[in-house]
Amino acid sequence: MIIILKQNANPAKVEELKQNLIEQGFNLHLSEGTVASLIGVIGDTSHLHEDWLRALDVVDSVRRIREPYKKANRSMHPNDTIIDVCGRKIGGGNFQVIAGPCSIETKDQIIEVAEDVKKSGAHLLRGGAFKPRTSPYAFQGLHEQGLDLLLEAKKATGLPVVTEIMSAEHIHLFEDVDVIQVGARNMQNFELLKELGKVDKPILLKRGLANTLDELLMSAEYIMAGGNEKVILCERGIRTFETSTRNTLDISAIPMLKQRTHLPVIVDPSHAAGIRFMVEPLSLAAIAAGADGLMIEVHNNPEKALCDGAQSLTPQMFDDLMKKINQTAAFFQILN
Amino acid sequence: MIIILKQNANPAKVEELKQNLIEQGFNLHLSEGTVASLIGVIGDTSHLHEDWLRALDVVDSVRRIREPYKKANRSMHPNDTIIDVCGRKIGGGNFQVIAGPCSIETKDQIIEVAEDVKKSGAHLLRGGAFKPRTSPYAFQGLHEQGLDLLLEAKKATGLPVVTEIMSAEHIHLFEDVDVIQVGARNMQNFELLKELGKVDKPILLKRGLANTLDELLMSAEYIMAGGNEKVILCERGIRTFETSTRNTLDISAIPMLKQRTHLPVIVDPSHAAGIRFMVEPLSLAAIAAGADGLMIEVHNNPEKALCDGAQSLTPQMFDDLMKKINQTAAFFQILN
Amino acid sequence: MIIILKQNANPAKVEELKQNLIEQGFNLHLSEGTVASLIGVIGDTSHLHEDWLRALDVVDSVRRIREPYKKANRSMHPNDTIIDVCGRKIGGGNFQVIAGPCSIETKDQIIEVAEDVKKSGAHLLRGGAFKPRTSPYAFQGLHEQGLDLLLEAKKATGLPVVTEIMSAEHIHLFEDVDVIQVGARNMQNFELLKELGKVDKPILLKRGLANTLDELLMSAEYIMAGGNEKVILCERGIRTFETSTRNTLDISAIPMLKQRTHLPVIVDPSHAAGIRFMVEPLSLAAIAAGADGLMIEVHNNPEKALCDGAQSLTPQMFDDLMKKINQTAAFFQILN
Amino acid sequence: MIIILKQNANPAKVEELKQNLIEQGFNLHLSEGTVASLIGVIGDTSHLHEDWLRALDVVDSVRRIREPYKKANRSMHPNDTIIDVCGRKIGGGNFQVIAGPCSIETKDQIIEVAEDVKKSGAHLLRGGAFKPRTSPYAFQGLHEQGLDLLLEAKKATGLPVVTEIMSAEHIHLFEDVDVIQVGARNMQNFELLKELGKVDKPILLKRGLANTLDELLMSAEYIMAGGNEKVILCERGIRTFETSTRNTLDISAIPMLKQRTHLPVIVDPSHAAGIRFMVEPLSLAAIAAGADGLMIEVHNNPEKALCDGAQSLTPQMFDDLMKKINQTAAFFQILN
Repeated sequence: MIIILKQNANPAKVEELKQNLIEQGFNLHLSEGTVASLIGVIGDTSHLHEDWLRALDVVDSVRRIREPYKKANRSMHPNDTIIDVCGRKIGGGNFQVIAGPCSIETKDQIIEVAEDVKKSGAHLLRGGAFKPRTSPYAFQGLHEQGLDLLLEAKKATGLPVVTEIMSAEHIHLFEDVDVIQVGARNMQNFELLKELGKVDKPILLKRGLANTLDELLMSAEYIMAGGNEKVILCERGIRTFETSTRNTLDISAIPMLKQRTHLPVIVDPSHAAGIRFMVEPLSLAAIAAGADGLMIEVHNNPEKALCDGAQSLTPQMFDDLMKKINQTAAFFQILN
Repeated sequence: MIIILKQNANPAKVEELKQNLIEQGFNLHLSEGTVASLIGVIGDTSHLHEDWLRALDVVDSVRRIREPYKKANRSMHPNDTIIDVCGRKIGGGNFQVIAGPCSIETKDQIIEVAEDVKKSGAHLLRGGAFKPRTSPYAFQGLHEQGLDLLLEAKKATGLPVVTEIMSAEHIHLFEDVDVIQVGARNMQNFELLKELGKVDKPILLKRGLANTLDELLMSAEYIMAGGNEKVILCERGIRTFETSTRNTLDISAIPMLKQRTHLPVIVDPSHAAGIRFMVEPLSLAAIAAGADGLMIEVHNNPEKALCDGAQSLTPQMFDDLMKKINQTAAFFQILN
Repeated sequence: MIIILKQNANPAKVEELKQNLIEQGFNLHLSEGTVASLIGVIGDTSHLHEDWLRALDVVDSVRRIREPYKKANRSMHPNDTIIDVCGRKIGGGNFQVIAGPCSIETKDQIIEVAEDVKKSGAHLLRGGAFKPRTSPYAFQGLHEQGLDLLLEAKKATGLPVVTEIMSAEHIHLFEDVDVIQVGARNMQNFELLKELGKVDKPILLKRGLANTLDELLMSAEYIMAGGNEKVILCERGIRTFETSTRNTLDISAIPMLKQRTHLPVIVDPSHAAGIRFMVEPLSLAAIAAGADGLMIEVHNNPEKALCDGAQSLTPQMFDDLMKKINQTAAFFQILN
Repeated sequence: MIIILKQNANPAKVEELKQNLIEQGFNLHLSEGTVASLIGVIGDTSHLHEDWLRALDVVDSVRRIREPYKKANRSMHPNDTIIDVCGRKIGGGNFQVIAGPCSIETKDQIIEVAEDVKKSGAHLLRGGAFKPRTSPYAFQGLHEQGLDLLLEAKKATGLPVVTEIMSAEHIHLFEDVDVIQVGARNMQNFELLKELGKVDKPILLKRGLANTLDELLMSAEYIMAGGNEKVILCERGIRTFETSTRNTLDISAIPMLKQRTHLPVIVDPSHAAGIRFMVEPLSLAAIAAGADGLMIEVHNNPEKALCDGAQSLTPQMFDDLMKKINQTAAFFQILN
């Protein structure tokens, strides 16, 4: 960490700061320039907060050299983490497709979609029981009953299931769920993250709409610091000024995250685009950019879907797409 | 609501859609243009979801004419809502300043700051016991103990207290708190909002970093739909590409919100700027733009603050600022 | 176009508006709702400005149904435009790679790079003679002399050349250039666009850092309205809050533009990422998403490059990448 | 400037870099940490480009300590610059209001508005002759004829005039104009900026829609480096995800710019909001935040304005606003 001092900083106060840092066990490197003087702080600074330093009268600014996340950091853990979900491996060259409806609506619906996506080759089933909706008047999901139906679909098809949690209070309901999803709006629901750190289950952590990659990794760090290192990151589009798409898929996030962390990175093209016809090109682009998996919305009757119908594929469309996904994944496995 | 149909939309499917809408009790107005045909949907469409419509094969796009929030909507409730906090009124021409430290650290600290800000003329005391921090390694607040200390400061000074909640599980701990704050990162923690709808206490709802004003109002609607109409909105800066300030204070949010809603709107200049020297100009600008109050961070020793020291004012700075705030508020009361 | 009237709009003024529109040759469709009344304006509204309508006292808002661009609109021109650059076709299934240094520095440099990229299979040569630099103290390009060197490289290798123009005053210097590039910062330099509309040469139009896709198409429309329909669109990354990459490549722009326009769409992964290691994944993702071409920075000695060295590939890296690009382009040609 | 080296950087290459910097006349300060080594570069680094450094194999990243602008930098020029426009002073405590129509339409229109705004107390007249319009089919201004009409209005009222230039080719037409405006879309039209550096006239430089404050200052530096130090900066709203306002007025830009530069800073509330009713609150907020002036659109008949009618005030509204502006400016002059 580099501390840039103000011009004309009070020497006594600078001395005080230096003593304080030395007492905390850091080695210091001092450098006096014509326009600025610096203190290089040497040691593990992940517990040293910029906040405190920036508040000091003598400090102009503070710049970190190393990222403040440790467990999620590839430099601490060079090999790819591979996460095993009931035998399906994600990461480290293992590619998986998660598919299913935005929300679980009826037993017939979820089982039908589950059978369809399984036949097409999906490896995990998604379906929402707790739905974060912008409007209090929108369908909020079937809650416990929805989880029960999802587990019935799991039993019927053998597909492991992924579903979203919206509050730490509900963790006990997720005991038989295979992967717990944290939605974009809860990426910085730190109380929830802390509780998920105590769970022994893979967590699928979605990037928030306006969160940087470093913040996504800090949220992963929250879960990992609690003891649960099975975190799958998910890029699902960010908010920009562009209005023709629901969100802007940040495709660069894939190679950038893979450089910074060892955790698997998947992509949700359905939420990123918000429009059915864009799911295919974004899915193939995500594979080309190195994603470890995809999460795709499929509904047996999108025109009757209780949410996100506009971006849901029909089972037939998904079947066509899965053929292309499989060929594309195989192509890039050979290319690289 | 206007439904714009695709060119060459299947007439049988259009007919089906029209019947469906009529069965839901809407009146329809049809308009056929050279490039597009429209269906005008007449009636209360706040429960009619664009999602469902956009998923239909015959629909090109959907445009709302009226906002989907009702209880928060000024057109339903033309007079300003005035919220009373232990006798301090906010809104409808009543201006209040909330001040205090980012986080509660010790009994001495919170009582000292409370006494200082009271002396300078603040009307409510703020202080965080549960702190949302990007890093799991940062100070997370004193939790229950912090709430106890805050209540001691209330007792010592008579100032009503405002403090942040981070999880619905903690609501029972906030019984003696006067105003419950929902932070920017929890603006769309819908489970929390629903629970706060059942509470009989003012809620201070901060705008999320990347949320539109309509989304902020929909979040207020969540609380109000649950039965609690005492919501105070807070603009605290949004995330943009600009990096010289911590966030970009959206000053236009004040007049725009006041046009759309009857709820009080306050501003947090400390978090918006993130830098001490900007708190004063942003505070005065917020008053000039019509804000109903300010929330300002004050610390008895910012250089030792456990969080956000760089943006905290000293009690002396706050005292100087309060004089200017009072004069400015008085000036604009006369001007308008 | 739909005009939404204010509640309680003055009937005489509404009548006046209606007469005015009828006199302009439009047919009107009126619809009165419980909360709002509408006027549907039927006819070619591309010359009817929202500005004027929104200024009227009786108008609440105005919504276009059809895009205001015509010549660039796919609905007016369903087949892909194919642009021929000295026999190299771009668009309509024809994929091309443009490669070369950020700026032309010396005769040896540009000829060496040209020969290298030609050997690796690039189809066009890029190189900047006029460089838009944020700082007035940065290298601004060799200007006329740079264009001469570029033309020498063209002569030496037979590669058609692409280079950026920064002012309408310079058009006469670009007579022997094969494709004239308009940079992101000049996407809305309308005086320049108008002049380029009079030129009989392909124009490579880059999207501005904060411009929507509709604005990009309106800028293409400027050139096309002037008589030059040979416009190639280029996505090169937009500005967002993310700081780990130089810009955010908007991969969704490719399928969305291809739906809205018949013009070819290429991608510049070098400027989008700003970092060498990301050029490969972004290039392959762009192909997967349907791009008609790529523009890649290559320098014979990136460590000595006068600009953008950090994102430039060495000739060897480019040679490796071209092999992958060719295989990937061939794979997706078969897949689709 | 601090150069952060890669872990395991090749020592021979590091040595080469150090020699190169020393030959350029810099003093170096070396610091070896446990996770990274640094080179502190001491001297005037405004001509040293990060680009070149970041391209080097041994360099991880580069961080500037001081801004790369010099002439615009307050640290080089602590006193406020005061710009004199025909006797009207702007900056250094001198507050001015520029008012007039978006575009010059007829002789009667511009003279009538000029007389109106003069009567209300405006100090300078604005009016556009060259109009940057998103659509090629929109009114583009009266060009030379418009400038002539503006000069007639100047003659009739004695008000100095401000008008926008869109191309370096037109500079000769602006000889009798008092202040030349560079619009947001041309903030990085560097060829134009260079030519304006040779002019002996104040330049009103508007911030681009997605430009940082540092980029605005670098564009000012372009003009100043050319020899023209009379630059007035103008904040006019930036582009964000918020859609209820045309742009987001960045009110924090005022105090932040005033800290970084000695140049005057004015605000254009009309373009920032795009809606008439917001012009007043944003104007007063700008004064409160410390702006040196305002630029406000006024039209004698906004409903017939050829552009931007929705945000134009009537002369009567402007007259009312000017009373409040004058009182507010006087109030803050006393307060501070």
